[in-house]
Parts: sequence; structure tokens; C-alpha cells
Amino acid sequence: MPELVRFGVSMGPELLAQFDWLIRKKGYTSRSEALRDLVRSSLVEEEAQEEAAMVAGTLTLVYDHHTSGLSDLLNDLQHDHHQSIVSTLHVHLDAHYCLEVLVLHGSAADVRRIADRLIAVKGVRHGKLTLTSTGKGL
Amino acid sequence: MPELVRFGVSMGPELLAQFDWLIRKKGYTSRSEALRDLVRSSLVEEEAQEEAAMVAGTLTLVYDHHTSGLSDLLNDLQHDHHQSIVSTLHVHLDAHYCLEVLVLHGSAADVRRIADRLIAVKGVRHGKLTLTSTGKGL
Amino acid sequence: MPELVRFGVSMGPELLAQFDWLIRKKGYTSRSEALRDLVRSSLVEEEAQEEAAMVAGTLTLVYDHHTSGLSDLLNDLQHDHHQSIVSTLHVHLDAHYCLEVLVLHGSAADVRRIADRLIAVKGVRHGKLTLTSTGKGL
Amino acid sequence: MPELVRFGVSMGPELLAQFDWLIRKKGYTSRSEALRDLVRSSLVEEEAQEEAAMVAGTLTLVYDHHTSGLSDLLNDLQHDHHQSIVSTLHVHLDAHYCLEVLVLHGSAADVRRIADRLIAVKGVRHGKLTLTSTGKGL
Repeated sequence: MPELVRFGVSMGPELLAQFDWLIRKKGYTSRSEALRDLVRSSLVEEEAQEEAAMVAGTLTLVYDHHTSGLSDLLNDLQHDHHQSIVSTLHVHLDAHYCLEVLVLHGSAADVRRIADRLIAVKGVRHGKLTLTSTGKGL
Repeated sequence: MPELVRFGVSMGPELLAQFDWLIRKKGYTSRSEALRDLVRSSLVEEEAQEEAAMVAGTLTLVYDHHTSGLSDLLNDLQHDHHQSIVSTLHVHLDAHYCLEVLVLHGSAADVRRIADRLIAVKGVRHGKLTLTSTGKGL
Repeated sequence: MPELVRFGVSMGPELLAQFDWLIRKKGYTSRSEALRDLVRSSLVEEEAQEEAAMVAGTLTLVYDHHTSGLSDLLNDLQHDHHQSIVSTLHVHLDAHYCLEVLVLHGSAADVRRIADRLIAVKGVRHGKLTLTSTGKGL
Repeated sequence: MPELVRFGVSMGPELLAQFDWLIRKKGYTSRSEALRDLVRSSLVEEEAQEEAAMVAGTLTLVYDHHTSGLSDLLNDLQHDHHQSIVSTLHVHLDAHYCLEVLVLHGSAADVRRIADRLIAVKGVRHGKLTLTSTGKGL
């Protein structure tokens, strides 16, 4: 791991007091770590806007597994995109509802397209895609 | 204006290089200013979640001014909430469409409620509320 | 104004009951109007992702007008982009803080770039861009 | 499963044409299904704002597993909150980076607090929480 670079930051005392309150509330142990997280979040946000950027993503789906044929259809769709879908986690929320999380990997455009296709499936009650980073350079 | 406090931040060289790229792209002239903006944005976000926090907000409405009675109705609604609506800017987008921006001031809960009410008006094609800060402490 | 097209929608009774509760809360007078608003919002969101799409936007800036040279700098920057900046509204929040709303018009990419540049100015405490539609086709 | 209720919706022809284009693009097979998804998303969004609402959530973390002590610390924190953390999926992104997805269950306030605490851990490069529904009533 490369050495850390150290540089100075200046901030008004009022802003700093509020910042210290916020990072205590969120459980940070140092200002540096909190600032690094803010920087990383803004980089991830920037990256997600570039269609060609390689990203990781998680797609959360909530569906009723009693819907006839749904599990098979979701399974088929996932196999169609097996190069982009790394892994899947399935949770039984209650007697009816399942929550499924898919970890996706690919260009931002591809990941979005696959997520749209799965969210559109009838019987899927809610779907939401979160784009994150592959970690490189962060 | 109170004096700035200066403190040290450490960051990995790769992350720092990406951060420097991002702030150049966005037009920042110093790392400190970019970091202060990230801190302020996360404080504003936090504040907007508290219903009682006093906030400023801007509500953007796009509507077709040919819709019969719409301008009057919007005007009436705005007067009902005149304590919370500070000012309004009206722009003629083309022969049909108007864009109106309202500056609101009040508790986050009140500002949201007024915005919902105005967005729900028939003839308003699109409405979006942006919560910001009153500036205090930032 | 062209005639409205009417079509049937089916929904489970529980979902419909919740939807009716939500639209009453938000002040809608009909399900049709609430559904049209949801459709328009998703179209505006889609549009904002295309860099070349012509959009309208509002940029909200909060700044301390005592910061020396700030008003002039903001003014200069706005004149550099006068083709894209349609109009500006200025509100005095208190003895120190100003809220300025700029209505922008142009490609999504241009509007984002100009907003980034203005938010990055030292002395601007908070800035947030809202992209909306020019109304056409909605 | 209760019977579906059918009701009429009216929409301008231009808006309807754009809506049909969008749902084709996203892979929907019927307008009803697309409208139900829009309604469900707005209900989930509304719900997530109420601190006491019971929600499901997925937290995506990207971290470098070479960071000394990190896996143990994350593990310990997760055990502290085992009533709220239903399940975890771990993916090896490359030689350095791991992506971990946690499925959380609890009040919106609790789920947010736990997520904040885990994201704040040093070595976690990026974290993002997605709130969804437990499915009930959707």
C-alpha cells in the first residue's frame, strides 16, 4: 500500500464544529477518513454518469414468489446476462415476499440496461439499482 | 469573519490524483474549497431530513399557461402560503410553456407540503423541489 | 390542445388504496393527474441522462455577499454564459446570506458544466442544480 | 391473490407516445405494469422518509480486504446488529477489493444508523444504502 500524502485544509470554525458533530454522529474516528469518504462518493457519482465506465452495481428486487412463472423468468433473464451478473443473494422476507440482491459488473450503460429489464418483469414489486465502484483508484 | 482553522488531511496518492482531476474539471481553485463544499453538501442533506429544521428551498414548476384558470389558481395557492413563499421568478420558455421558480422559506416539513400541493395542480407538467440551507453556520 | 386518450389500468386493491392515500396527501384531485405526473417525472429523469438533450434547469446558490469580489465574479461568470442563463432571481436571506436562483437553458451537458463552474466559486456556500424539461411533449 | 381493480386513465397523445417509448425501452410488456411500478416507487420513497416505518434495505460496501483488521471489525459490527442484519453476500472484485452486500431489516432510522456506522469504518472505500419495502401492501 502506497504511503499517504498529507496536506492542509482550512475551514471556518463554525463549519468545522458542525462537521465534527456530523462525523461523530456517523461514527467516524477521524476527519481524514470522513473527508476521504466524501471525496470517494463524489468520484463514484461522477463515474456513474459516464456510460462506458466499468462499474460494480447492486440491484435490489422485491417480489412475490407466488407469482406463477416469475422465479423461472427471473432465472432465465439472469442467465442471459451471466457475464454481467456476478452473484445473487436471496432472502425470504415473509411467507410471500422475497428480496433478491444481484451484484452486477460491467459498463454503466450495460448494468443500467440489465437492471431496467429485470425491474420491468411483472411480479417484481420494487427494484432499485445502486452503482458503486470497482474500487480501483479509490 | 472569523479566522479559518487549519488542519491536516491524509489521502492515498491515487485517490488524491483523482480528486485533483475532479476539482480541476469542476473549476475549483483549491482543495480546501472543494472539501468545504463536500462538507457543506452533506450537512445540507442531513438537515433536509429533519422535519423541523428551518430551510430555504426552490421549487421549479413547468406549466402550460394556456390551461384555463391555471395561473389564477397557482397565484391563489401562493398567496395562501405567502409567509413561506419569499419570491417568484417567471420565465417564458416558448409560446406555451412557462417555468416558474419559487423561493420558499420555513420548516422542511412545511416547505415539502407546499411544494407537493403546487406540483399536484392540474396543468403543472413538472415540478421539483430543491432544499438548501439558510446559510447559517455554513 | 389535442384530445386526451383514455385507457384502462388494473391495480391490486391494496396498492390502489395506498395510492389513493398518497395522492390525497399530496393534494391531487384525480388518479389520472397523479399518474401523468409520475410518467412525466420519469421522462424528465431519463432525458437528464442524455448529454445532448435540450433541458431547462434551475441552479440554486447560497452565498455570503460580504465575501469580497464575489458578486462581481459571479456576475462575470454569468455574462460569459449569457446564452445559457435565461434569468436570475436574487433573495436576501438575512444580513449576510443571499440566495440566487439561475434559470438555465441548453444541452444537459452544458447546463451541468456551467453549474459546476458557479458552485465551485469560493464564497458560494451551497449550490444545487435541478434539471427539468422545456415542457415540449409533456 | 385479490382480484385486480380496473379504472380509466386519460393522457395527452404526445405524453402517451413518449411513455410508450420509455416502457418499451425499459422492457415493460404493459402500461399497467409500468404505472404500478411508478406508483410503488413513489410509495417506497414516501415510506423511507418516515423514521419509524419498517423497511428492508441493502447496504453495498466496497473495501480492500488487505486493510489489517478490517474484516474482523466489520464482522464484529455486524454481529452487534445481528437482529437487523438478515444476510450478507461477499464478492471478490479482484485481488484487492471486496464488495459486500448486507440485507438489513428494521425501522428506517435503525437501518440508516447501522449503515452510517459501517460506512464510517476505515478501509471501507465506498458505501451506499438503498431502502426498499418489505413488500407488504405493494
